[in-house]
Amino acid sequence: MDRHTSKTYEHDLEKLREKILRMGGLCEEAIADSMRALVERDANLAREVIARDHIINRLEVEIDEQCIELLALRQPAAGDLRLITTGLKISTDLERIGDLSVNLCERTLELLEVPPLKPLIDLPRMSKKAMGMVHDSLDAYVRRDAELAMQVCARDDEVDELNDQVFRELLTYMMEDNASISRALGLSMVGRYLERIADHATNISQMVIYLVKGKDIRHTFHQPPATVSDGDG
Amino acid sequence: MDRHTSKTYEHDLEKLREKILRMGGLCEEAIADSMRALVERDANLAREVIARDHIINRLEVEIDEQCIELLALRQPAAGDLRLITTGLKISTDLERIGDLSVNLCERTLELLEVPPLKPLIDLPRMSKKAMGMVHDSLDAYVRRDAELAMQVCARDDEVDELNDQVFRELLTYMMEDNASISRALGLSMVGRYLERIADHATNISQMVIYLVKGKDIRHTFHQPPATVSDGDG
Repeated sequence: MDRHTSKTYEHDLEKLREKILRMGGLCEEAIADSMRALVERDANLAREVIARDHIINRLEVEIDEQCIELLALRQPAAGDLRLITTGLKISTDLERIGDLSVNLCERTLELLEVPPLKPLIDLPRMSKKAMGMVHDSLDAYVRRDAELAMQVCARDDEVDELNDQVFRELLTYMMEDNASISRALGLSMVGRYLERIADHATNISQMVIYLVKGKDIRHTFHQPPATVSDGDG
Repeated sequence: MDRHTSKTYEHDLEKLREKILRMGGLCEEAIADSMRALVERDANLAREVIARDHIINRLEVEIDEQCIELLALRQPAAGDLRLITTGLKISTDLERIGDLSVNLCERTLELLEVPPLKPLIDLPRMSKKAMGMVHDSLDAYVRRDAELAMQVCARDDEVDELNDQVFRELLTYMMEDNASISRALGLSMVGRYLERIADHATNISQMVIYLVKGKDIRHTFHQPPATVSDGDG
């Protein structure tokens, strides 16, 4: 490639990274606002998150198109090729994270129609951890930082354990009082959505490790937990 | 490309299709055997499905590698480029379907430790529908059949409605008798896993429609349902 083409190519790769980071940022905001809507009992905020999801969806399409354009026009080799194909897969995980935040808001809107069951302590903790994992997994991608990606994978266990704790506590409410079953189920679903968001961040991190090290840990590092709560892989 | 290279290239694309179909077939078997293990109360079969999952995982890695090789060596243009990038995304959906079958078997093993709660009618129906959707979405991919893909998307509503029905019925069991709560929760999770498998088949189909028609229906056709049960996107 001549210098001009090479500069344009680097510029295109940079635009791709920026777009992925932007999509990730919107996902983090969606997670944060979903939890805030639940804790502060703010139905309008929940509806707003649901409405904003189309922006996240549109970014997935834009990222995919950018990747295909790069592949078609630049015919990148080796490292950059994998960077781009990884970007394609990451956009899907981010879009699902957006969807999970929408699901969280839908449960919130149902929960806000009835009195609160209990103070929310662990779910906001899970939400912060999940956001951090999403943030760091994308940082790891743009910086090709396998170390950071491995740390994210390790944090998935904390989120799984918190979810177990949340679920066991909610089970006691369900057993005590029939009238609490619906609300407890709604809150347990919120926990599950957050656990799945963390799983998606872990997936992204595993792809980054594969990208950087060429070593496939995608199916050795992260074992789907066999627990009472929803142990989603 | 000269004739020899073009023959090899067609051969490579054919191998990719075969591998994706093979992975899909293993997923269909996993779904079928998971449900059979639950209905026939066969713990060994459930454990076998869990053990076989590594084969599905390995195929994801092989398909990804094959796609990257094709992109690097053949530098395909236009239609074939999109076929290959779509294959990359499909392998992820199939791997998640495998994971969901594992989750289903884990719940089954828990459920088999206690007496059955009720005869299973709707869950096996959901399982058959989900299997059919996986099968047809991959058929649609290899044949570039947008019509078939759209039919698969339309069938997702049936699965969502069945899941709603399953959940509402299980809720009545939970309300009637505390002692049934754990089992009812386990079965409701089975329903959720099947619903998510159908969602993955729908995602594959939406990608096929995009591939064939260049028209993006990925975020217009399928709305995540806002229901009492787990309305996963």
